[in-house]
Amino acid sequence: MSAAPAHDAAVLTNLTRHVDDLCRLARPAAAVVAVWSDADRQRALRAAADALAAAAPAIRAANDLDLQRAKRDRLAPAMVDRLDLGGARLDEVIADLRAVAELPDPVGNVLAEFTIAEGVRAQKVAVPIGVVACIFESRPNVTVDVAGLCLRAGNACILRGGKEALHSNRALASAFRAGLASAGFPADAVQLVQETDRELIPLLLAREDAIDIVIPRGGAALIRAVVECSKVPVIKHDKGVCSVFVHAAADLAMAERIVLNGKAQRPGVCNAIENLLVDQAVAAVALPRLATALRAAGVELRGDAAALAHLPAGTALATEADWTEEYLALILAVTVVADVDAAIAFTNRYGSHHSDSIVTQDAEVAERYLREVDSACVYHNASTRFTDGGQFGFGAEVGISTNRLHARGPMGLAELCTYKYVCRGDGQIRRS
Amino acid sequence: MSAAPAHDAAVLTNLTRHVDDLCRLARPAAAVVAVWSDADRQRALRAAADALAAAAPAIRAANDLDLQRAKRDRLAPAMVDRLDLGGARLDEVIADLRAVAELPDPVGNVLAEFTIAEGVRAQKVAVPIGVVACIFESRPNVTVDVAGLCLRAGNACILRGGKEALHSNRALASAFRAGLASAGFPADAVQLVQETDRELIPLLLAREDAIDIVIPRGGAALIRAVVECSKVPVIKHDKGVCSVFVHAAADLAMAERIVLNGKAQRPGVCNAIENLLVDQAVAAVALPRLATALRAAGVELRGDAAALAHLPAGTALATEADWTEEYLALILAVTVVADVDAAIAFTNRYGSHHSDSIVTQDAEVAERYLREVDSACVYHNASTRFTDGGQFGFGAEVGISTNRLHARGPMGLAELCTYKYVCRGDGQIRRS
Repeated sequence: MSAAPAHDAAVLTNLTRHVDDLCRLARPAAAVVAVWSDADRQRALRAAADALAAAAPAIRAANDLDLQRAKRDRLAPAMVDRLDLGGARLDEVIADLRAVAELPDPVGNVLAEFTIAEGVRAQKVAVPIGVVACIFESRPNVTVDVAGLCLRAGNACILRGGKEALHSNRALASAFRAGLASAGFPADAVQLVQETDRELIPLLLAREDAIDIVIPRGGAALIRAVVECSKVPVIKHDKGVCSVFVHAAADLAMAERIVLNGKAQRPGVCNAIENLLVDQAVAAVALPRLATALRAAGVELRGDAAALAHLPAGTALATEADWTEEYLALILAVTVVADVDAAIAFTNRYGSHHSDSIVTQDAEVAERYLREVDSACVYHNASTRFTDGGQFGFGAEVGISTNRLHARGPMGLAELCTYKYVCRGDGQIRRS
Repeated sequence: MSAAPAHDAAVLTNLTRHVDDLCRLARPAAAVVAVWSDADRQRALRAAADALAAAAPAIRAANDLDLQRAKRDRLAPAMVDRLDLGGARLDEVIADLRAVAELPDPVGNVLAEFTIAEGVRAQKVAVPIGVVACIFESRPNVTVDVAGLCLRAGNACILRGGKEALHSNRALASAFRAGLASAGFPADAVQLVQETDRELIPLLLAREDAIDIVIPRGGAALIRAVVECSKVPVIKHDKGVCSVFVHAAADLAMAERIVLNGKAQRPGVCNAIENLLVDQAVAAVALPRLATALRAAGVELRGDAAALAHLPAGTALATEADWTEEYLALILAVTVVADVDAAIAFTNRYGSHHSDSIVTQDAEVAERYLREVDSACVYHNASTRFTDGGQFGFGAEVGISTNRLHARGPMGLAELCTYKYVCRGDGQIRRS
């Protein structure tokens, strides 16, 4: 983005004016949303859902325009599929929004309670973050999902979707805002960026005065571009290079289930595994068995020299680049490690600190691994595929944060809040 | 900083090399520190305290060099005082370090516990952040304070103090590191930046790969410079424009105590008040009384037109700039507001979202204020001066965060941690 060609001054002026408008309207809307009651916020989401249902024909027509253009521009079929709101998809988006309205209120939760000096009572209370920006790619459902989650947690939002979905996003945001307005709520609590010029993003993300947090959702290039230019704190939803370590004391039938689930159930997601680590003490037994099961599931293996000794002839040799690659495909890199220490070191070095699992019947070794592997989610005898807001019981998720701070791992309504200290006294002053 | 004159290439190469060295050593040290046990970390801090005590003569000699230079360069007396480790001060620094060693371990605290899909048990567990950078000004005690707090929470740190304190900081860091090494711990868990060239800061804070968080401690210019250049997440410890609102139903004797404590007990700190809001219903009674007490304490008042009507003749008229000014002095801006709504709006608009207090006997009004004032710490019938890690019972503090995310308000050991999810199963896989 920073390498984009110089824009003509008139274009930049227009973009700056649009950013100014969005920012000017967002903060006052956020201040209103922040003090809505739980019931108010539920009513707002239900009104938006009703308006989306009423606008379904217009939304489908807008979506058709995007689909026609996508086909004309010969976008990849997977991309076209992500754009598509046809069939039952729009109904599902609306049903998900209604479900978010019914989730427990995260705002006002008392996170801690204690007595400070002189007997003043303090509560640490969850409160909205303020203005959330979300930069995403082609899926138009994100417009409704993120707007719903932000409002449920008392935040206003500024949404910037991909240009491929502009007609769909406009129709969705317009219906959502009409729903809010019809129920007497400020429509500007949900704003869609109307310009698709990528030069807008650095202008928007320079506005730390008006935006409290930005969530990029999409591929590595998008995330890199946002991190590069943003003055606003970024919650990244970056790649997952996840792993399973089959320890010497593993139940091998369990290991087979967990490895297969991690790699083959849905290889295109961030909590799928890319690396398999096998303890040298069981490599001769475990690897042939795992290889047979993985190959039957269509998985291509790449092994280091020690692994190749126990893998079918013709298996490719893994290179250093394989250990850090997020394949998002039916490919698995395999290494043989000396022991749990080597497994921990390998995982912390090559993994992306997302989700990693050990399979072992040795509780002491498991606790070492759980303690020392520095990942958002660490598992013992369970699949890494559980790293997901839905599976975690969060009801809905904005994504899986790969940040270390504020939100780490599945990010739901609780992570769309910050906190403040509410302190109640009866006249106390500080003495020293 | 970004406006600094172009440096000669050799200087930049040297600075880059120094940053590379610091960053290369920090991450492996952090990995070691992160898995130290509670007892290990306590032993490390005690060893450092012993080494500091043993090196006291060398530290005092180094401090004398800094003090001599400060006097020769005619630094302001307050600045010279901040530099000074004489008298009992070094002993206090060492005693504080020993006290941090005795604080409860923040690492491993179970923040939440729940069952995820298929009956897998999940714990949200506090873990170290990793590598903490701290950029500070002239107080050399910060070197020991921050190193102690970081290590207690399982983090490594990179410390960059002001050039005025370089000799003192070198002596302190060197003794601290010698203490760690003598007890068999990696000295590189505490690193001091040896170059005082300000151009180093952007080079250091570009290293998001090696540094997880940066804490600037100092004046507004330092904080702005850090925020401007940092790719690393910043926890700001920025200015406090705090206020007290005396509501119509206030106990005026209590209001007088809380206002005086907020303004006059220690005016140079961030939790002192800069604005006084008085409900118009009681302005005629409350303002003359408060003015008398404040003037007796040497406080200069500046009022808006409505306030001047009830303040002594000759009181200065407040301008718009007064409402956002952090005086750090015995000056107080006074406004008369229509009601609690106006007080909330004024506070959210002009305050710095740090600490604000309402004085009232009306519980319903108090709850409105506590809910709607968007500050890190909101008080009912208590002084804003309680916003402090020590007063909050955190034992020690890194400072008062003015960030909205990760750490808000007093920042102690708990806020020097992040979290991970530790999930224990017995073979569960995801089904859909």
